[in-house]
Amino acid sequence: MYRVTKPTLLLDKKKAIKNIKTMAEKAKASGVNFRPHFKTHFSKEIGEWYREQGVKSITVSSIDMAVFFAGHGWDDITIAFPVNILQMDVLKHLAKAVKLGLVVESQTAIEAINTVIESPVDIYIKIDTGYHRVGIWHENVDHIKQLGASIADHHQFKGLLAHFGHTYAETKNAEIQSIYHTGVASLNALREQLDSNLKISIGDTPSCSLIDKFENIDEIRPGNFIFYDVMQAHIGACQFEDIAVCLGAPVVAVYPERSEVVVHAGAVHLSKDKLDDEQGIYFGKVVALEEKGWSAPIKGCRVKSLSQEHGKISVPKDQIEKIKIGDVLGILPIHSCLTANLMQEYVTLRGEKIGTMHL
Amino acid sequence: MYRVTKPTLLLDKKKAIKNIKTMAEKAKASGVNFRPHFKTHFSKEIGEWYREQGVKSITVSSIDMAVFFAGHGWDDITIAFPVNILQMDVLKHLAKAVKLGLVVESQTAIEAINTVIESPVDIYIKIDTGYHRVGIWHENVDHIKQLGASIADHHQFKGLLAHFGHTYAETKNAEIQSIYHTGVASLNALREQLDSNLKISIGDTPSCSLIDKFENIDEIRPGNFIFYDVMQAHIGACQFEDIAVCLGAPVVAVYPERSEVVVHAGAVHLSKDKLDDEQGIYFGKVVALEEKGWSAPIKGCRVKSLSQEHGKISVPKDQIEKIKIGDVLGILPIHSCLTANLMQEYVTLRGEKIGTMHL
Repeated sequence: MYRVTKPTLLLDKKKAIKNIKTMAEKAKASGVNFRPHFKTHFSKEIGEWYREQGVKSITVSSIDMAVFFAGHGWDDITIAFPVNILQMDVLKHLAKAVKLGLVVESQTAIEAINTVIESPVDIYIKIDTGYHRVGIWHENVDHIKQLGASIADHHQFKGLLAHFGHTYAETKNAEIQSIYHTGVASLNALREQLDSNLKISIGDTPSCSLIDKFENIDEIRPGNFIFYDVMQAHIGACQFEDIAVCLGAPVVAVYPERSEVVVHAGAVHLSKDKLDDEQGIYFGKVVALEEKGWSAPIKGCRVKSLSQEHGKISVPKDQIEKIKIGDVLGILPIHSCLTANLMQEYVTLRGEKIGTMHL
Repeated sequence: MYRVTKPTLLLDKKKAIKNIKTMAEKAKASGVNFRPHFKTHFSKEIGEWYREQGVKSITVSSIDMAVFFAGHGWDDITIAFPVNILQMDVLKHLAKAVKLGLVVESQTAIEAINTVIESPVDIYIKIDTGYHRVGIWHENVDHIKQLGASIADHHQFKGLLAHFGHTYAETKNAEIQSIYHTGVASLNALREQLDSNLKISIGDTPSCSLIDKFENIDEIRPGNFIFYDVMQAHIGACQFEDIAVCLGAPVVAVYPERSEVVVHAGAVHLSKDKLDDEQGIYFGKVVALEEKGWSAPIKGCRVKSLSQEHGKISVPKDQIEKIKIGDVLGILPIHSCLTANLMQEYVTLRGEKIGTMHL
């Protein structure tokens, strides 16, 4: 095991590759395209682990991220975020270099694409099936038809793209299955009224993890599943042992009288994403670092508060005496995407450093 | 005004310099040392703005940050975070290069410093006056005395360092004043029982902003005041017009039917820090970008939710028609330190780009 001396995002490469394989094989068995979301890891090296599993198409969440991965050999990229018309010049050049998928939901964006982008792009209309963040409500068939018809001939109206983000608020398998099946049914009903050649692309990690066989869709775009996190374990989309990243956090203070320790691990390392349980909010699960990785979450240990650099952990009374200043605790993040974005670098268990687009 | 095309952290340089001047002058008028905390901005260029106001000593929150600023000409640095004994090799070298202040609260840390660091360092014992994050309770005089006595002769027991972090939970001037005065009284009572030559160093932005004249202390270490933010305005430590940073966020979707817009500004730009008001939680105040900066917060506009890249803003019904896709809204961050850490770069109103230690 790599020796941590300061806040370090440890990455269990075997678990991550296993998570990639499981999802890639499920997509293959279902006959759907696997277009993993790279906003979780942001890393060209980790991108290669996907390529080794046969992945050729990817999803990103920003134009800058598309430019980064295009520069690292990815030539089939969908930007799953409503087109930002202020960056059309970048999209114009990107469309020349790669097979580019763009997500739209307004006449304004389609006109900008029609006018500025000369090279053909695949256009997906974003459909809202109940999450109500972005997208056009799936029953507004005429509006969607109208948008589709306004796409210029040199581009292709490729499909309907949805994100069942409301699965993240559920913790019961049956509820997640229900959101997934209702969403897929809505998208299919819509497709029937538009054009049966349209592709259906969906993407959340809870659905993609819990559904055994994908039917009546053409593509999945999950991202978080490569690392998973406490949120996904809480939802039931993974087990704690599937979580592939863990923040190594040095203990800098011990308070036996209040059964707390303070570690160097704060909001600039973990993010402020949190969960609730019967004892209140918490910002991560605590594990013991071991020779070959890390333990299951330690019962009764809670990351109870975070400030910029400090993490305060409450420890069961009978265990506080075991923890010393200079020990390193592991923290499983609530939301691995945000933690990875903050840390900017991974260190594998063997000490290999892996950068991200920010570094 | 610089033309924003993607999420951009705008910095009003004039406001920031005014904020620095105000605090520097107040410190000077009170006869206390001004040791601003550089964890808010992380930037060598912005560091120079402090130097122009006569600042010679700084505070940082991590050993890495100390190394960064030591490399940019700062030679009097206090690391206001309990010493991480796993990084003693770095501290040993740093102590040779600069006048180094270290914060301790344990025998373990003092022994590591005594043994490993040959060059003299200034040692501050961290005192808890009520925040209960780190530090030794101010009434534990014998324990503090014992720790002080164990500092090796080649180092100096320089002072008592406290952070009145509990001021951040207050919104009344009188409450903040009370925390400050109680804390200062506790530190002075402690100093009297130890050694009258010890320096007293305190640091929170709410106290430092609201106290007119610092008495019976030797040093202030505020950081956030250079930018301020919605949290500080909420506390009453600043006015909205004092806030010197604003995230420029492109509008990518407009929903007149639910009176909402979605901007490209998410948790990876703003952080998940939030506040509550009578309408619930919010993640920033919305302003209009103008020729020479930005407006006051727009009444009734709320950043009501954030996901990784999306920000959802609710807009009063009578104003939603004015907002178009491709407009850029400004968002005043809840917590500017975390936003700056995420954005890694500032752009001044005139378009000058300013990097941070992460870039």
